[in-house]
Amino acid sequence: MSKTIFQKDLEQFCIDALNKSGMESLYAVVTAKVLVETDAYGTHSHGTKNLRLYIEKFKAGALDQKARPEFILQGGAFAVMDAKDAMGMVSSYLAMEKAVELAQKSGIGFVSVKNSCHFGAAGYYANMAAQKGLIGIAMSNTDPNMTVPGGKSMIIGNSPIAYAVPAGKYKSMFLDIAMSATAALKINQAKLEKKAIPNTWLVDDKGIPTTDPKYYGNGGALQPMAAHKGYGLSLLVDVLSGVLSGGEITSGITSWCFDMAAKNRVSHAFIALDIRQMQPEDKFIERIEGYIDYLKNAPKAKGNDTIYYPGEIEWLKKQKADEQGIALPDDVVQSLEQLAQSTGLSLAWVQ
Amino acid sequence: MSKTIFQKDLEQFCIDALNKSGMESLYAVVTAKVLVETDAYGTHSHGTKNLRLYIEKFKAGALDQKARPEFILQGGAFAVMDAKDAMGMVSSYLAMEKAVELAQKSGIGFVSVKNSCHFGAAGYYANMAAQKGLIGIAMSNTDPNMTVPGGKSMIIGNSPIAYAVPAGKYKSMFLDIAMSATAALKINQAKLEKKAIPNTWLVDDKGIPTTDPKYYGNGGALQPMAAHKGYGLSLLVDVLSGVLSGGEITSGITSWCFDMAAKNRVSHAFIALDIRQMQPEDKFIERIEGYIDYLKNAPKAKGNDTIYYPGEIEWLKKQKADEQGIALPDDVVQSLEQLAQSTGLSLAWVQ
Repeated sequence: MSKTIFQKDLEQFCIDALNKSGMESLYAVVTAKVLVETDAYGTHSHGTKNLRLYIEKFKAGALDQKARPEFILQGGAFAVMDAKDAMGMVSSYLAMEKAVELAQKSGIGFVSVKNSCHFGAAGYYANMAAQKGLIGIAMSNTDPNMTVPGGKSMIIGNSPIAYAVPAGKYKSMFLDIAMSATAALKINQAKLEKKAIPNTWLVDDKGIPTTDPKYYGNGGALQPMAAHKGYGLSLLVDVLSGVLSGGEITSGITSWCFDMAAKNRVSHAFIALDIRQMQPEDKFIERIEGYIDYLKNAPKAKGNDTIYYPGEIEWLKKQKADEQGIALPDDVVQSLEQLAQSTGLSLAWVQ
Repeated sequence: MSKTIFQKDLEQFCIDALNKSGMESLYAVVTAKVLVETDAYGTHSHGTKNLRLYIEKFKAGALDQKARPEFILQGGAFAVMDAKDAMGMVSSYLAMEKAVELAQKSGIGFVSVKNSCHFGAAGYYANMAAQKGLIGIAMSNTDPNMTVPGGKSMIIGNSPIAYAVPAGKYKSMFLDIAMSATAALKINQAKLEKKAIPNTWLVDDKGIPTTDPKYYGNGGALQPMAAHKGYGLSLLVDVLSGVLSGGEITSGITSWCFDMAAKNRVSHAFIALDIRQMQPEDKFIERIEGYIDYLKNAPKAKGNDTIYYPGEIEWLKKQKADEQGIALPDDVVQSLEQLAQSTGLSLAWVQ
C-alpha cells in the first residue's frame, strides 16, 4: 500500500541508516538529499527504494561507504576524479561542485569521474548547477542493456543525460533521459501484466523488434531511442565519462543491482556553464522565462489543454511533496520497511 | 540524371562562384570545403546543392558575403561571436577553431554564435576538432519546424547536434543528427511518391500523429525524436546557442531557404575537449579503436552481417568519393548546372 512521509523525515531516516552502515555524516546527508529529492520528483525507481540495496552492496564489499573520491588531475577548466568505489551520489555531488567552481572561473567546467557507482537520477546534479545560477549537464554510462542498429543482445548502456537551466520565476527547465526508447522498468511492468509493448522498445533474442516483453532478461535488449540517434548519443556518454576519465565502459561495467558482490565501476561526466560571464543574468533569465511562456502558450493538440516545459511535471510533484509529503508507491514502502526492520530504525509515516 | 565530379573540381567551382558573388578568397575556400565534404559524406541535402540559394540570398541582401564575424566577448574557456549575418560556414569554421584553441589552453572550450545563417552539416565542424586530436561537438538552432508533446503546429526547431571523436586507425567516430524523428526531406519525398509515412514522423494540423505526409507545410509539424526526449534536447540547443549568445531562438529565426529576403539569424554553439590534457593520447586512441572493434564484432541481428560505428557509413562514402569522385543526385546536378549557367562557370563532370 502506498504511504506518505515528509521529506525531512525520510531524509533523516536515510541519514540514520547510512550512519549505521558506517558512512560518515556529510556523505550520508548528501546521499539522503539526492535520493529523497528524486522521490519528490516522482522518479521512484531511482530514489530511496534503492537505499537498502546500496547498503547491501556496502556489506558485500563492492561499494565503499568510507571511500573519499579524489581529484587525480586538474587543469584550467577541467578535472578528473577517481571515485574509488564511493557511493555514486557522493562522487557525483563533489564532481558537480567542482564543475561549477571551474565554470565560475573559466565560463565552462568539465569533470569526468571513474570508478564510481550508480548515481541515481542525473537530474539532481544538473539542478545543483541551476540552483547556483549556472547551466548544468550530467551524464553517466551504464552496464550494457541496449542493442545497437544491426546488432542483438545487450551491447551498450542506455546512458542517462540530464540538463538544467535556471528559469527565474519558474523552477528550472530540466530534462533527465536515458538513451533507450524506454526504461527497462516499463518493460518489466508489461511483463508482469502480460501486456504487449510497442515494437520500438525491445528486440528479441535474434535482435528483431518485438512486442513481447518476455525477452527482456531473456536474450533481448532495449532499443536505442530513435535508432541510430540514441545509439550515437550513448557512445558519446561513454567517451566523455568513461574514456576521458580512464574509467570503465560497456562490458567493463557490472550491473550495480543484479550483481551485489561486484564493483559497479560506472563513469560519469559533469559540465557547468556560467551564464553570468556570457550574458547579463537578468536578460538571460528574462529570455528563459519568455521561452517557457512561449511553450506554455503554444497551440495545443486536439484534446489537450496543457503543454509542460521540460521539468515542469517533476516540479509539480515536488511542490505537492513539499506541501503534503511524498506519496511513495508500494515497492518503495516495502523496501524502506525492510530497511527499517534490519536497522532497527523507524519511519515517520504520515498516513 | 546523376553525374560524377571530383571533389577538387567541385571545390574550385564553388570557390569561383563565391568569388564571382563578391566573397573574398579565404572565406570562399572554407565555404567550398564544408559544402563539398558534406556531399562526399552523402549528405546531399546540406551540400553544394544549396550554394545557388546562398548566392541568391547574398543578392537579396539577407546574407552578407563580405561580413567579418567578430568575437564580442571572451573569457577563460569561452567566447561569444557575433556572426553579423556572414555565411554560416565561415562563422562556424572560425568559431570551432576558437573552441579548439580555448580547449588547448583549458581542457574544454565553448563558443556560442549569434546572428549567423544556416551552417550546413554540423558534422563538418565536429570533425574539425577530431582532425586535430580533440573531441568536437557542434550544434545549431533552427527556425520552428517541430511540434512539442501536447502541442500542434511548428513551435520549436529540430536543432541538429553533431559530435566527433578521433579514432586512430579508424576515421573519426561521428554523429550528426537533428532532434526530430526524421528529416523533412523524407516526408516531402513520401509526399511526392504518395506514400504513407510512419505515424511517429509528423503531426497533422490538429497536432495528432498522422501517416499522411501532405500535412507537412500544411498546418502539420515534425514530431520530436523519442517524444519528450527530442523536445527537451532541442530546447537545450536553443539555450546553449541562442540564449547564451544573446542571439535568436524559435520564432526569431526565419527559414534560410523559404524566405530569401529575410535574415536567417540562426545561433550555433561549439564545444571542444582536449583529450591530451586528460588522458595519454595513445591510450585514449587505443580505447576508442577497441570500442569500435567491440561494436563491429558484437552479435548481429538475424539477417544482418554488419554493425556500423557512428560515422562509418559517411566515411565509406567519402572514401569512394576520394577514389571515384562524388556521384551527385539529380537535384544537386540541376542546382549546380543552374549556377554554372548564371555565373558563366563550367563544371568538370567526370561522366
